[in-house]
Amino acid sequence: MHQIAILGFGTVGSGVAEAISCDQNRIQAALGTEICIKYILDLREFPDHPLGRLVTHDFNDILNDPEVELVAETMGGSHPAYDFSLACLKAGKSVVTSNKEVVASFGPELLEAARQNNVSYLFEASVGGGIPVIRPLINELSVHQVQRISGILNGTTNYILTSMQSHGKDFDSALSEAQKMGYAEANPSADVEGLDAARKIVILAAIAYGRLVSPKDIFCEGITQVKLADLKAAESLGGTIKLIATARQTEQGLLLLVAPHFVPNHSLLSHVEDVFNAVSVRTDVLGEAMFYGAGAGKLPTASAVEADILDIFGGRKANQAALVWERIGRSELTDPDSIRCSWFLSAGEKSCILIDKTREEAVTYGKSIQSGACFRVLD
Amino acid sequence: MHQIAILGFGTVGSGVAEAISCDQNRIQAALGTEICIKYILDLREFPDHPLGRLVTHDFNDILNDPEVELVAETMGGSHPAYDFSLACLKAGKSVVTSNKEVVASFGPELLEAARQNNVSYLFEASVGGGIPVIRPLINELSVHQVQRISGILNGTTNYILTSMQSHGKDFDSALSEAQKMGYAEANPSADVEGLDAARKIVILAAIAYGRLVSPKDIFCEGITQVKLADLKAAESLGGTIKLIATARQTEQGLLLLVAPHFVPNHSLLSHVEDVFNAVSVRTDVLGEAMFYGAGAGKLPTASAVEADILDIFGGRKANQAALVWERIGRSELTDPDSIRCSWFLSAGEKSCILIDKTREEAVTYGKSIQSGACFRVLD
Repeated sequence: MHQIAILGFGTVGSGVAEAISCDQNRIQAALGTEICIKYILDLREFPDHPLGRLVTHDFNDILNDPEVELVAETMGGSHPAYDFSLACLKAGKSVVTSNKEVVASFGPELLEAARQNNVSYLFEASVGGGIPVIRPLINELSVHQVQRISGILNGTTNYILTSMQSHGKDFDSALSEAQKMGYAEANPSADVEGLDAARKIVILAAIAYGRLVSPKDIFCEGITQVKLADLKAAESLGGTIKLIATARQTEQGLLLLVAPHFVPNHSLLSHVEDVFNAVSVRTDVLGEAMFYGAGAGKLPTASAVEADILDIFGGRKANQAALVWERIGRSELTDPDSIRCSWFLSAGEKSCILIDKTREEAVTYGKSIQSGACFRVLD
Repeated sequence: MHQIAILGFGTVGSGVAEAISCDQNRIQAALGTEICIKYILDLREFPDHPLGRLVTHDFNDILNDPEVELVAETMGGSHPAYDFSLACLKAGKSVVTSNKEVVASFGPELLEAARQNNVSYLFEASVGGGIPVIRPLINELSVHQVQRISGILNGTTNYILTSMQSHGKDFDSALSEAQKMGYAEANPSADVEGLDAARKIVILAAIAYGRLVSPKDIFCEGITQVKLADLKAAESLGGTIKLIATARQTEQGLLLLVAPHFVPNHSLLSHVEDVFNAVSVRTDVLGEAMFYGAGAGKLPTASAVEADILDIFGGRKANQAALVWERIGRSELTDPDSIRCSWFLSAGEKSCILIDKTREEAVTYGKSIQSGACFRVLD
């Protein structure tokens, strides 16, 4: 029997508990033994929950219990989630997490602690919810040169853009609807301004290129300025507008950005709708591969945490030796505005696509045709 | 250093050799040691190939060499590929393969031999070329109940259908073009009549449901009867026609079939074009997830073989304990024609979708509106 602890009994943490309880028969079949939740760390009490008796308020109960082999960190926020994770790894316990904030900020330290203590630090649930994307990137694709990663990594903004496009809504009313549906927070800024997608793309870039950038240091533009007229103009040119997070190695350095892009209809990403996420990875050998699915939600995210737990107990260690992330700063990134690319100018009937232009050149031309906005074209 | 042998130096086998040679630096980084090809088994000589000196014509050289830890079987055909694979597993060598025919016909025996000898039998390259689909299905998704798998598993037929739809060609001229482009064999029957897709879906169904059916025993209809008029009619109803292979557990038993389906535009599968493949998996927890990429080709397929090799040498064992496949016969399958589903009737301007009908009911109604053909609707 494997004993584990769950840190944080919110949406994801309670989902992990539920998934593990429901799946015991299949876990038994896969591992030949069961997984038992010994502690749940939370500040609150859950007297009416069947697992409420497992709640502790003292992290040391977990840290000092040698029977706890693995800890699922589903607290959210940087502290104390980072501190608790580090302490567990140093105590020889593997840690799995859904916390993209911690991975994006402290990945190098936590991966190093895992290596030094011969345990695992896995974070499949931190990007793309239930979609298996981190593991293929670490394992299957690790031996190939990743040319670029482009993804729709935030379900809230994709829902809003889909709703604007399909139902002719403006941004504000699409956002209100997303809030009513529970797809957007009361304070939606981390989603609509692109920070959530930024955290996820820095994690994917770190896996692909071995270098971790602070999410705050990357070029990040959300969807608050996208107008219904821009979506209509994009449609008339055979495409749509999606919030794309992308990473690639250029001759000038690593390029990382989050911005609304014109996505032509021949790209599968243009057809990813509502709250779904998708990650497209282009490698030297494979060409383009894409992973698609539910990017958020209690059970999909919990299921990704559970998959990491099963990998660790099943002895299917991720290729963690390869996960050495060097921290780099803004000055080592390529300035996206210096890169020549194709641009979509949204200007009603005069809308057009410009090829091989810097942003400045695109904006200058845009003024001449009274374009309201310009958007990068996904390549 | 890990020593391996390659059985069969055709397209995939030579691709595996090329991939491993090119990737030595990254292999070294991932494994901390290199992979060395010690033998290549082929009936032919390759005097001008840099690895030509490794060629042997005698399988026993490989079987009896204890230094060979792993064998990559890329021969194609059932025999002697199966016999050689079994002998290697029994000799304590792991086997990886791209050979869907062997996996679909002899999977249970080979998986059992791998278990008994504590080695691995992996076959990522047998379905979906370079797309990581088998491993997520075995590992990440294994603990969930798979509700259905539906995929575009054959690139040749997808190329032909895309070409008919986009360029208004009829089947024969689209096939000729695919042959000219090297996407279809001179004898295209295994592709266009659906057998290739049938072999792949029985493998995916075996992973998901633990039961292996002979590809010959499943309902299998190719695309030779699909007319340009059917594609046009589908387009007018907001969809297209794709060759879909599908597996699901119904109340009446396992349902497996390969047939052209009407795929509505809101399904991402409808936008998978040309030679690309995609597999959509619906599970109880995750909802729908989709994997997309190059379904064939020398380097993508070789790269999937290489990924299996790296998994084995990297100690990331697949969850092979779960891969116990019971062989079942045609009588244990559900008759697809007995299942009620939605149908697309292709009848020019009278084309329509019928809901909740058996095939017989759909055909009967179809006659009343002079429908030329009826197609299942993808759900």
